[in-house]
Amino acid sequence: MAILNTIEGGVCAAKGFFADGIHIGLKKEGAKDLAFIYSEKPCAIASVFTTNKMTAAPIRHFRSLGEFEGNFVLINSKNANAMTGRAGIDDITEVLGELKSKFPQIQNPVMSSTGVIGVRLPKAKIIEGAMKFDLTRREGINASEAIMTTDTFSKRLAYEVTLENGQSFRIGAMAKGAGMINPAMATMLCFITTDAAVDKTTMQDILDECVHTTFNAASVDGDTSTNDTVVVMANGLSGAFHAGAFKEALESIMLFLAKEMVRDGEGATKLVTYKVTGAINHKEAEIAAKALSNSLLVKTALFGQDPNWGRIASTVGASGIMCDEAFLSIWFDDICVYKKGELLFDEKLEPLAAAVMQKSSFTIHCDIGLQDGEFTAYGCDLGHEYVKINADYRT
Amino acid sequence: MAILNTIEGGVCAAKGFFADGIHIGLKKEGAKDLAFIYSEKPCAIASVFTTNKMTAAPIRHFRSLGEFEGNFVLINSKNANAMTGRAGIDDITEVLGELKSKFPQIQNPVMSSTGVIGVRLPKAKIIEGAMKFDLTRREGINASEAIMTTDTFSKRLAYEVTLENGQSFRIGAMAKGAGMINPAMATMLCFITTDAAVDKTTMQDILDECVHTTFNAASVDGDTSTNDTVVVMANGLSGAFHAGAFKEALESIMLFLAKEMVRDGEGATKLVTYKVTGAINHKEAEIAAKALSNSLLVKTALFGQDPNWGRIASTVGASGIMCDEAFLSIWFDDICVYKKGELLFDEKLEPLAAAVMQKSSFTIHCDIGLQDGEFTAYGCDLGHEYVKINADYRT
Repeated sequence: MAILNTIEGGVCAAKGFFADGIHIGLKKEGAKDLAFIYSEKPCAIASVFTTNKMTAAPIRHFRSLGEFEGNFVLINSKNANAMTGRAGIDDITEVLGELKSKFPQIQNPVMSSTGVIGVRLPKAKIIEGAMKFDLTRREGINASEAIMTTDTFSKRLAYEVTLENGQSFRIGAMAKGAGMINPAMATMLCFITTDAAVDKTTMQDILDECVHTTFNAASVDGDTSTNDTVVVMANGLSGAFHAGAFKEALESIMLFLAKEMVRDGEGATKLVTYKVTGAINHKEAEIAAKALSNSLLVKTALFGQDPNWGRIASTVGASGIMCDEAFLSIWFDDICVYKKGELLFDEKLEPLAAAVMQKSSFTIHCDIGLQDGEFTAYGCDLGHEYVKINADYRT
Repeated sequence: MAILNTIEGGVCAAKGFFADGIHIGLKKEGAKDLAFIYSEKPCAIASVFTTNKMTAAPIRHFRSLGEFEGNFVLINSKNANAMTGRAGIDDITEVLGELKSKFPQIQNPVMSSTGVIGVRLPKAKIIEGAMKFDLTRREGINASEAIMTTDTFSKRLAYEVTLENGQSFRIGAMAKGAGMINPAMATMLCFITTDAAVDKTTMQDILDECVHTTFNAASVDGDTSTNDTVVVMANGLSGAFHAGAFKEALESIMLFLAKEMVRDGEGATKLVTYKVTGAINHKEAEIAAKALSNSLLVKTALFGQDPNWGRIASTVGASGIMCDEAFLSIWFDDICVYKKGELLFDEKLEPLAAAVMQKSSFTIHCDIGLQDGEFTAYGCDLGHEYVKINADYRT
């Protein structure tokens, strides 16, 4: 068994990685808006991107590179460089070209963007700003702050993983979320760095597996963005690796960040775990769990702290999965509010269920009562803040 | 060509139909909460119901009757009689049995309910109230008010249809909507009466066709209810019928009511028509149009009157249909904001697009630019009122 110890440093926790975030005038009032991650040694890179067909320019650019080892990611907020066509990709080539001239140690750089869709990248400002980077800095916190949009806190985590043979490696990550979160293959922006000695193919396989139960199980608003990106960079500098331990660490980091993202969803006041069991297979459990995390009526009932279990039942029924009220059971944490056709809800149960709803984090468990299919999804409530943030996002 | 003239009377407009709505104490402050529709002659009945698997008791009861001619519908608001199992159906049988004893002219009555899920029907109150019905009354407005839940206005329409041969028939309807509106085979409650001489099979075929482009094209919140019901009753008393004219009238009435429902969606301030053209087939156009009408980010941008066309593009891309930004074009009414990869949006265009967004009703048109597939869906915005209504629906 490997031992996972939480450590400081975010994306700079692993050996040989550097990062920083600075303010170049994309955001107001001095807030950080441009970040980099740099590895002193070229990295194997695994990645997962959005399934949105209107794929943003940075993802198109990344994909156009084919197989490559790289050591640099440039990340800006406030502009998604999406719907910008060929010009959007040319802008990236130009920005990264200027960076390579200034910093010759950079190899195969890529770019990642988040912000408003359909506006050309403020290229000159970004080039001018990037010239001020100091590639010897290890300021993971600054980097995680620079990639925030409507996030209210920055999200990062790092582990030191000690293997049974005494060897160890480190893995650290940062992510941003908040809105347009319904990852269909990946999520918003998440960057993970490791000094584990892992090859690209193994790392990509492990990443694909972990994405399904972590970022792909999270939803803030059911809208899949144009820019969703998860990138893992491994420079091998620790010389250590163990597939099981690496997967355990990666999955744990991604699940933590996915839940942090939902907890910090636009306007969210609650993180709700939707556990669906007893479906005829895992796929149907997943459909029901995601339907629950995306239902407006469920989300507004959560905001109102109203244990309206009827909306839960209706949403499961509307999701299209095989189910029947005679076999369904529903719990709010350990309070059972509906059991296989029995209307348990009364004046005694209501305050108990309402007390669960008042918590900032709890579980809604639906047992379909048919077979062994199960899935767990993560969602948040929808309140006035969400409307406020999104009714006037661009201004 | 048949001539359609709008007339008064709602569900009582057609010959031989009677209706009323009364207050029996389910709603507060004297608001009407129990309605009936009665025909002096037994009717052929066509119907479409929700695809939600947690089908409410009144729909299960209706279906259990098999093929039948009937002349009476009892409708209550404030209680959906859903998730109530076998007991919910027994309650209906008992209520309708009492009604038949009191009014021997009633044949094969059915019931329809709307309101809170998961609470037993207040049977005694309903029986006591129904005893006060006067089956000779033609108060279509009262009936349409009694079926309202969070609706802010009642919805009804009636036509006199004059055929080329000089014969005529009448068709009238009432509906309620407001929340849990994403009809998957039908919609909330809609009752249509006609004295056209139409047989059940023809009427069912025409109803199925009309549902697709009307109620099934409407969404308030993407949540499909347990109680969606459309019932058409034809007593044949006019002696007149023409399939084309009947379809034209039925489709026109259903489209009107579907749009009224969206316009009166919970918290809605705008009725938006989403016209998608140029998809590779009609099905893909439908997927994109419905994705637009259900996107939280699009709906909140509408509420904020923000011409954020990037969210439109992103939503089309995320819907999974075949599309590419190089072929996509987007209009707000006749203002083109994005044309086949060209970023048209600038300081001159923004106020023009914003002016469209300020209207209470307008069209967002996305041309996918590939083939001839098209579909039109109807949706509304999502603002603070929606959150307010749904955060505390049960109290």
